[in-house]
Amino acid sequence: MTVPHLTTALSGPMPDLERKILQATPTIEHWLRAQWQEHAAPFYASVDLRNSGFKLAPVDTNLFPGGFNNLNADFHPLCVQAAMGAVEKICPDARGALLIPENHTRNTFYLQNVAALQTILRHAGMHVRIGSLLPDLKEPLEVEVPGGAKLRLEPLERHGNRIGVAGFDPCVVLLNNDLSAGLPEILLGLEQTVLPPLHAGWFTRRKSNHFAAYQEVATEFAQLIGIDPWLINPFFEKCGRINFQERKGEECLEGYVTEILDDIRAKYREYGIQQDPFVIVKADAGTYGMGVMTVKDPSEVRGLNRKQRNKMAVVKEGLEVHEVLVQEGVYTFESVNEAPAEPVVYMIDHFVVGGFYRVHMSRGTDQNLNAPGMQFVPLAFEAPCSAPNPDDPGCPPNRFYAYGVIGRLALLASAIELEQTDPALAEEQAAAQPRVAPY
Amino acid sequence: MTVPHLTTALSGPMPDLERKILQATPTIEHWLRAQWQEHAAPFYASVDLRNSGFKLAPVDTNLFPGGFNNLNADFHPLCVQAAMGAVEKICPDARGALLIPENHTRNTFYLQNVAALQTILRHAGMHVRIGSLLPDLKEPLEVEVPGGAKLRLEPLERHGNRIGVAGFDPCVVLLNNDLSAGLPEILLGLEQTVLPPLHAGWFTRRKSNHFAAYQEVATEFAQLIGIDPWLINPFFEKCGRINFQERKGEECLEGYVTEILDDIRAKYREYGIQQDPFVIVKADAGTYGMGVMTVKDPSEVRGLNRKQRNKMAVVKEGLEVHEVLVQEGVYTFESVNEAPAEPVVYMIDHFVVGGFYRVHMSRGTDQNLNAPGMQFVPLAFEAPCSAPNPDDPGCPPNRFYAYGVIGRLALLASAIELEQTDPALAEEQAAAQPRVAPY
Repeated sequence: MTVPHLTTALSGPMPDLERKILQATPTIEHWLRAQWQEHAAPFYASVDLRNSGFKLAPVDTNLFPGGFNNLNADFHPLCVQAAMGAVEKICPDARGALLIPENHTRNTFYLQNVAALQTILRHAGMHVRIGSLLPDLKEPLEVEVPGGAKLRLEPLERHGNRIGVAGFDPCVVLLNNDLSAGLPEILLGLEQTVLPPLHAGWFTRRKSNHFAAYQEVATEFAQLIGIDPWLINPFFEKCGRINFQERKGEECLEGYVTEILDDIRAKYREYGIQQDPFVIVKADAGTYGMGVMTVKDPSEVRGLNRKQRNKMAVVKEGLEVHEVLVQEGVYTFESVNEAPAEPVVYMIDHFVVGGFYRVHMSRGTDQNLNAPGMQFVPLAFEAPCSAPNPDDPGCPPNRFYAYGVIGRLALLASAIELEQTDPALAEEQAAAQPRVAPY
Repeated sequence: MTVPHLTTALSGPMPDLERKILQATPTIEHWLRAQWQEHAAPFYASVDLRNSGFKLAPVDTNLFPGGFNNLNADFHPLCVQAAMGAVEKICPDARGALLIPENHTRNTFYLQNVAALQTILRHAGMHVRIGSLLPDLKEPLEVEVPGGAKLRLEPLERHGNRIGVAGFDPCVVLLNNDLSAGLPEILLGLEQTVLPPLHAGWFTRRKSNHFAAYQEVATEFAQLIGIDPWLINPFFEKCGRINFQERKGEECLEGYVTEILDDIRAKYREYGIQQDPFVIVKADAGTYGMGVMTVKDPSEVRGLNRKQRNKMAVVKEGLEVHEVLVQEGVYTFESVNEAPAEPVVYMIDHFVVGGFYRVHMSRGTDQNLNAPGMQFVPLAFEAPCSAPNPDDPGCPPNRFYAYGVIGRLALLASAIELEQTDPALAEEQAAAQPRVAPY
């Protein structure tokens, strides 16, 4: 359980914010317990964090996390325990789980993630089979995964309102496919529990909804421990009508970039921060670090050349970008072997089960690190601090506690976001509204 | 996360029983989930197991476990996560926990256990103070623990029906004192949640009640996975009126020893086992491996000499032994560095959080190993088996799964035992009975 050598984060004094979070541990855990009584955590999530020393904030929350293979192997039991707890709460009677992964059969890193997930669920005591959305899959496909494991991808079968694979009728369907390509008909109207719910998929999910929910959570949390909410919450705005190819909506974008840069500048002045403010412009729907750019001056979003426009216009699965999130950029002050690094926190149910640093040798501290060439350094979270002295607040592994807290705030925001965007709930609420006759 | 070198257990082929348990994983976990819907797990427990290769059984279940300091440090996060879950279920609103330890202020091993427990609870987000039952403690006492930590033992204070220490009114009281010396008045009628409940204390608890509950659990479980319940359940009987000093009750003891030895002999014949049957005679109440003897011939319990009688007559805190459990002895076929070893499984809530081998250089494979001179070798339970191949059933760490299962069966038995012996429930049931008029 070795902690990577972090040239800044772990050798300097602990930033004030982390110390405040650490000191408020009992208050925070008590508050979180109450939140989880009110809101059901998604089955799993990963949260990308940025720690600039003065500010620690989530910048992306993934509800279909890949990368379980990148977690420290020591934390596998933690994943299993959390998965057992989740199954117990969501469907104690479940015996069989159907895992539906992405269609990347040639991405061996992703396949390792699927194998890791399958192992976690098996060790949690489930029968697990893998059902594939590959459109032309007629027979089970065996793919080899580095390390010697074999994955068996089977064609999905639907019978009435139930889905499964040949000879296997699962109680629960676990999606590890983020539905960027849209909602497949075969998943519609299932009577089985689907985790996370379909409306968590990128065909309908919006980052702006997530960060709006996060803003509420962050504000309440900041009040709880007596800090400025900005220290954990990046400014953001949404541009709803963009067409990069047709160069429509650039003024809106420029306006919001200006506004947010001004807001950051004011905060930097307030805190005496010397760095240049920057914003991240990214697709409001979508993932994989596609369609992301760093902007330091509003003029940069006006004069986009063809290459830049192409890059921003289309994300994963060819999804066109018409809505864009403009988010305050957070410098990372962490590095691993002198390359900029950002922590990614993994959760199952409402428990932190591990994490890693995403490291990119050829990127700057003000850039998106989720890009080809990135590497992963597994993290040891919450390691014991019983020796030499549990009372020493500087006890190194405890520094990761803050990451786990901010990760869980983003998770809580996801729980609230999924409630707010639940189509079934929206219908119910509409039905419960007193109707006014049309005359 | 190294697994100790086990000359027999891990080098030979996996025993049939372990394989059966491993193969039934989804069935077992599904059944256990249903059990935990019905029965509330004690806050924590440790279970001593014996694995003879053909038989794997619990021989003692401790509801006030010491030895958390002996767990593999890698599993600390697992303890924290399970403790968080337990607090959430039992008293989500809790902020402060009062830990009441044993009065052994000079036993540095035990103090390390208290420090480990305190750290677990703190990392689970609780304020933790230690309240001592030491009768003459007037001022807080600071004791140093190997490793540099300091424990602060504070005098208990009672205000009305609440207990605490100076300036600290906890929501929950966690006992790590097994109440062998009786039930202190200061703990009576508290309005705070006390974990485990007072009637789990040795002043009233009986091993025979535990093993009677375990027998039911083992029978149902054996049916579930299609095995002979004897393979996981040791025969036992209780002698209720013994006085070793006055040599009373020896016939009863001799009778039961004969009976159980005969029963074991019949089973050994059935399974073609060549070893000599033996029984363990031990106090029905009490712990610390005191008052325990190995018996291979009924005559041995008749002619006890003074030294043997003294050893059996009194256990921890001077508690006199008048009730005795006669239990089938289970050979251990495990060894660490050629010394006999038995696994001890630790649980918090209903999760296995670690374990160790108790090893004794100068004891035999048919003897109690819980005796001065024992050593502890931390175990890595449920380590990941994702590489090289998760489908390989011989994948070494999975062999420990069986220990976790039998440990949890004993835990379930404790949950049922505590329901059955709950004085409050007994009163309620008596009140609910239709009364028959006395004429």
